[in-house]
Amino acid sequence: VIELVGFDGDDTLWHSEGYYQAVHAGFERVLGKYLDLADARVHERLLAMERENLHLFGYGAKGMTLSMLETAISLTSERITASDLHHLLQLGKDILRHPVELLEGIREAVAEVAREARVVLITKGDLFHQEAKVAASGLGELFHRIEIVSEKDESAYRRVLSEFSVQPSRFLMVGNSLRSDIEPVLALGGWGLHMPYHVTWAHEASHGVDPGHPRLLRVDTPAQIPGALRDLQLRAAGSEAMSLPG
Amino acid sequence: VIELVGFDGDDTLWHSEGYYQAVHAGFERVLGKYLDLADARVHERLLAMERENLHLFGYGAKGMTLSMLETAISLTSERITASDLHHLLQLGKDILRHPVELLEGIREAVAEVAREARVVLITKGDLFHQEAKVAASGLGELFHRIEIVSEKDESAYRRVLSEFSVQPSRFLMVGNSLRSDIEPVLALGGWGLHMPYHVTWAHEASHGVDPGHPRLLRVDTPAQIPGALRDLQLRAAGSEAMSLPG
Repeated sequence: VIELVGFDGDDTLWHSEGYYQAVHAGFERVLGKYLDLADARVHERLLAMERENLHLFGYGAKGMTLSMLETAISLTSERITASDLHHLLQLGKDILRHPVELLEGIREAVAEVAREARVVLITKGDLFHQEAKVAASGLGELFHRIEIVSEKDESAYRRVLSEFSVQPSRFLMVGNSLRSDIEPVLALGGWGLHMPYHVTWAHEASHGVDPGHPRLLRVDTPAQIPGALRDLQLRAAGSEAMSLPG
Repeated sequence: VIELVGFDGDDTLWHSEGYYQAVHAGFERVLGKYLDLADARVHERLLAMERENLHLFGYGAKGMTLSMLETAISLTSERITASDLHHLLQLGKDILRHPVELLEGIREAVAEVAREARVVLITKGDLFHQEAKVAASGLGELFHRIEIVSEKDESAYRRVLSEFSVQPSRFLMVGNSLRSDIEPVLALGGWGLHMPYHVTWAHEASHGVDPGHPRLLRVDTPAQIPGALRDLQLRAAGSEAMSLPG
């Protein structure tokens, strides 16, 4: 049976991506003073810069802000004013200050899941900002542990599971990103519960998850999470009874 | 006796502060094009901005770079060119790319300590950058665990000790910062081994450690660490035998 349930943070427990998209829109408005936005593919250039800097910056709002400044300087051939760059820097700081608003019903869902399994928050990105969001969310004490990782790949999940001494076949991950929350967990032999968010960061859009995978369910709202866990528990019990591989 | 030994990373295992100081010098050179450096107290203003942004950025090179850009824009009343800001941004990226050079003799010292106690690397700052430095150092496999924390205060050390199920009186921390590596550990009842680095970040300069504290020793080089641990083990055994508080 499933004895450990991981929850993603951004866009699973609290709203996040919308703040980033608002900043991207502000970025385009500033760049529109220098460039013909119809031609310049400003957003694509920003994403390309973020991708290029990922090996230095990792994920998170500080790296995104630095990439935004670098893209603005580069796309305007260093013509942009310090005043406009100052504005972009403040947009980046706004992300670090954004209020933490929980998804409706998520507190109740986590509390209900915590009555039948240990629950762990597994989130990626900037350590300091993620800790601040956990604190502001008021959800911290519901979780047995908070794990902030730099990348959500198979080795990160393997490390978390070994710290809990839990087999992958007894682990369920709940999150909005098929790429970060579901694909690596299924690959290890674990279970996935996908709860899509209404917007997805471009970097998370590509993945190789089969929507019909036997260890994967999908819900639309937090209120459906406890019921989905019960369904998956039945499947897990069934596959253990039949001695099928986890 | 001491059964767990923590090592700090920056300026204890590998050189770090020198790279930051080189960037600060580059920052002053750029600002010198706009301001009379003798009057402007550029370095103090940068430190003040870093302190002001600490609650949003936490520690690390990305936040330092953003504070540097913000200080430059503000001190020049937005007169600085995008070209000069671009240069500052590249200086910040250089820190994230700097080579990881070990302090002479530290690998041997950690390996020797690891033969008589569990060893854990406890470092603060940017998760992604610190992980990259641990990987580049080649020291990762010597440690039982790598703990990257956002702030090295009593509660952070208490959490690490509880994960290892170790009493503070059986824990020794080795590091260059009296403020971050020694003071909170002594306050918890643990042991401290201070190995000063030739330069100290201004933020780390203030502390309340008594240099004659009975659970504190000081060494000048990594080669002296194993011997200092043996001395502290004798003291620890002595205070246990006399049933003194750890």
